[in-house]
Amino acid sequence: MKNCLVAQSGGPTAVINASVAGVVKGLIEKKCCNKVYGGVYGIEGILQNKLIDLSNLSSQQIEILKYTPSSSLGSCRYKLKDYKIDEREYEEFFNIMDQHHIHTLFYIGGNDSMDTVDKLDQYAKEKGIDKQIIGIPKTIDNDLCHTDHTPGFGSAAKYIATTVLETYLDASVYPNNGVFIIETMGRDTGWLAASAALANIGGESVPDFIYLPEIAFSTEKFIDDVARRYKEKNKVYIVASEGIKDEQGKFLFQLNKPEKHDAFSHVQLGGVSNYLKHVIMENGITSRVKALELGVTQRCAMHCVSETDINEAFRAGMDAVEYSIDGDSGFMVGIRRLSDKPYESISFKVSASEIANSIRYFPSDWINSQGNHVKEEAILYLSPLIQGQSSVPMEKGLPRYLSFVE
Amino acid sequence: MKNCLVAQSGGPTAVINASVAGVVKGLIEKKCCNKVYGGVYGIEGILQNKLIDLSNLSSQQIEILKYTPSSSLGSCRYKLKDYKIDEREYEEFFNIMDQHHIHTLFYIGGNDSMDTVDKLDQYAKEKGIDKQIIGIPKTIDNDLCHTDHTPGFGSAAKYIATTVLETYLDASVYPNNGVFIIETMGRDTGWLAASAALANIGGESVPDFIYLPEIAFSTEKFIDDVARRYKEKNKVYIVASEGIKDEQGKFLFQLNKPEKHDAFSHVQLGGVSNYLKHVIMENGITSRVKALELGVTQRCAMHCVSETDINEAFRAGMDAVEYSIDGDSGFMVGIRRLSDKPYESISFKVSASEIANSIRYFPSDWINSQGNHVKEEAILYLSPLIQGQSSVPMEKGLPRYLSFVE
Repeated sequence: MKNCLVAQSGGPTAVINASVAGVVKGLIEKKCCNKVYGGVYGIEGILQNKLIDLSNLSSQQIEILKYTPSSSLGSCRYKLKDYKIDEREYEEFFNIMDQHHIHTLFYIGGNDSMDTVDKLDQYAKEKGIDKQIIGIPKTIDNDLCHTDHTPGFGSAAKYIATTVLETYLDASVYPNNGVFIIETMGRDTGWLAASAALANIGGESVPDFIYLPEIAFSTEKFIDDVARRYKEKNKVYIVASEGIKDEQGKFLFQLNKPEKHDAFSHVQLGGVSNYLKHVIMENGITSRVKALELGVTQRCAMHCVSETDINEAFRAGMDAVEYSIDGDSGFMVGIRRLSDKPYESISFKVSASEIANSIRYFPSDWINSQGNHVKEEAILYLSPLIQGQSSVPMEKGLPRYLSFVE
Repeated sequence: MKNCLVAQSGGPTAVINASVAGVVKGLIEKKCCNKVYGGVYGIEGILQNKLIDLSNLSSQQIEILKYTPSSSLGSCRYKLKDYKIDEREYEEFFNIMDQHHIHTLFYIGGNDSMDTVDKLDQYAKEKGIDKQIIGIPKTIDNDLCHTDHTPGFGSAAKYIATTVLETYLDASVYPNNGVFIIETMGRDTGWLAASAALANIGGESVPDFIYLPEIAFSTEKFIDDVARRYKEKNKVYIVASEGIKDEQGKFLFQLNKPEKHDAFSHVQLGGVSNYLKHVIMENGITSRVKALELGVTQRCAMHCVSETDINEAFRAGMDAVEYSIDGDSGFMVGIRRLSDKPYESISFKVSASEIANSIRYFPSDWINSQGNHVKEEAILYLSPLIQGQSSVPMEKGLPRYLSFVE
């Protein structure tokens, strides 16, 4: 019987390990392979023969792995060269597969990782190598095409909406509250920033404004938005994606660089939220402005995981194993939404070449006419993805996590 | 029958509303007053006669209030003048008390707020005014004297330790991870930064170094610490309190100000973590450095609340009512630890004058000899305070919160 290999690539998420747990559990249950290897540090580590044996993980260890955030097998950001130009890495990769009698690679990642899946599969097919390369989606950015959404996004969205709710209350306690700006990830797309709209009190959306990369940012319009709302309400809550760009297509955070006389001229100071803070202060709206960059917390907050998300991430791993039995290769496990109420979804297969290097933007018709908030359609889409709380295994008041690389 | 008044002051915490809920519930259960008023925006709002009637809160509303972070009644940072110099505010305050037939004020806050409790009580006693002023502690800073700890701290500590665990895993996924710096609150004391030491994997403390305001910070020693550890482990996890000062007693974050030629010369860019990030880069240790300021999330993360903490905050409110029956005034409800295993604590009364304007520092004999981490004694003290998870009431995948001022 052949062996299998599972590995992770790209930025971590809260639930990427749930997909590893799904693959391992699926392989053990289906008894369709001999050994399950984990590739350490993604394709970069596999090319250095960094493999560990996961076959003997206990059910309890698999359960803890399912509830461990970040990439327990380690990760990489590594782009394979075009094999028509240089095929040495490909030869090396399939040599290592052979050496360990591995027939199937399950590769968990985003659109760059699906480029790896696609390239390895194309090479194998062209050379008549009998191996399977199967992709499993993950990314908090939710920017993969064809799939309704990606595992990892729902938990990030839940954490963002929860934190927006909590920081909004924190920012509302004084008679003169000022402006609060929260910055989400999302270099290319506005899915994460949009998820802040889920936060509502008494049915009213908590953020006054949400600025997405899909709409060119006008500083003039922004000043007008904020000044008007501040006059009306004495406080303004703003959500900004790290990826918003000005009308010339330049990232706002790049406008934030200190002058060359600054002590640290070669480093970038602050992101979009700090830039916007300065704009508000410079324009005399108020000097009471707080900026909060969520940073990596939004991609690893297992303690606030969405049960829907973690279950779908686990199922994607299980279903990838199920699909592997047919012998197919070069595809990714996508998620198809069947209904909203009650929410229901199933897995399906989509060619990795259709996912690789493509970006799915936040739909422009879900953005309001002012370009500073999202419409009800967005809420209807987002809401099912954050449902349900999971009981993370705890020990002495803190979550109990499992990592193979730390 | 007389009426009562409850109000909140100073920076919010995750559980300060639990103390309001405890007061309201206590007063309703004991049937020892007619009406319960809430003072909006602390003493500042009370002086403007901003009172709302809380007498008709339903049990369900009290329960939601208990699990709502931040100060639902609003807050203030307002210091009463010395009444020997100007007693107009005092006259105004007791006029408003009389006007609403209020006999007792329950005032929830930190050491500045206990200054208010003390001053109002002293004035009443001096003038022979028959009123009660009772303090209830809150502060994430844990820096009140005489009490074992303060409500709000345990939840902040739990959130910090959880986030340290999760961001450490996130910062460990690549073969070349670099340095991660997390910045906690704590302008004067190191309690919050020290709580990061609770995060451990396999029994080993996650942070490599913890820098507290209680130890003068040496940049030279810091560079040495980090460079050495980075060479050993290829990654370093650092916890820094926002309040660390250099050997001249100057706050590190003040060293971070941009040069006058910077575009935004009048604003402060970044805090301690950004300063340390630059120190590491400038000294060529590595260019892979991430800095994360937790900001207000650490004081409002109800979704990660400590059950021990929220129960003690609620009990402090209930016990304040119980104590008020004796007629005593000018005290704060303190917490006395009876045992660690099993953890047990009780309330006791301590004079507000002994709390007002004093600071309890992190014990120097709980800091290691290198001044860059904490000892086992700290863990033993901290651990009971973060125990237990609470089920925050949820609605559509998000916590359900109640606020009177938003």
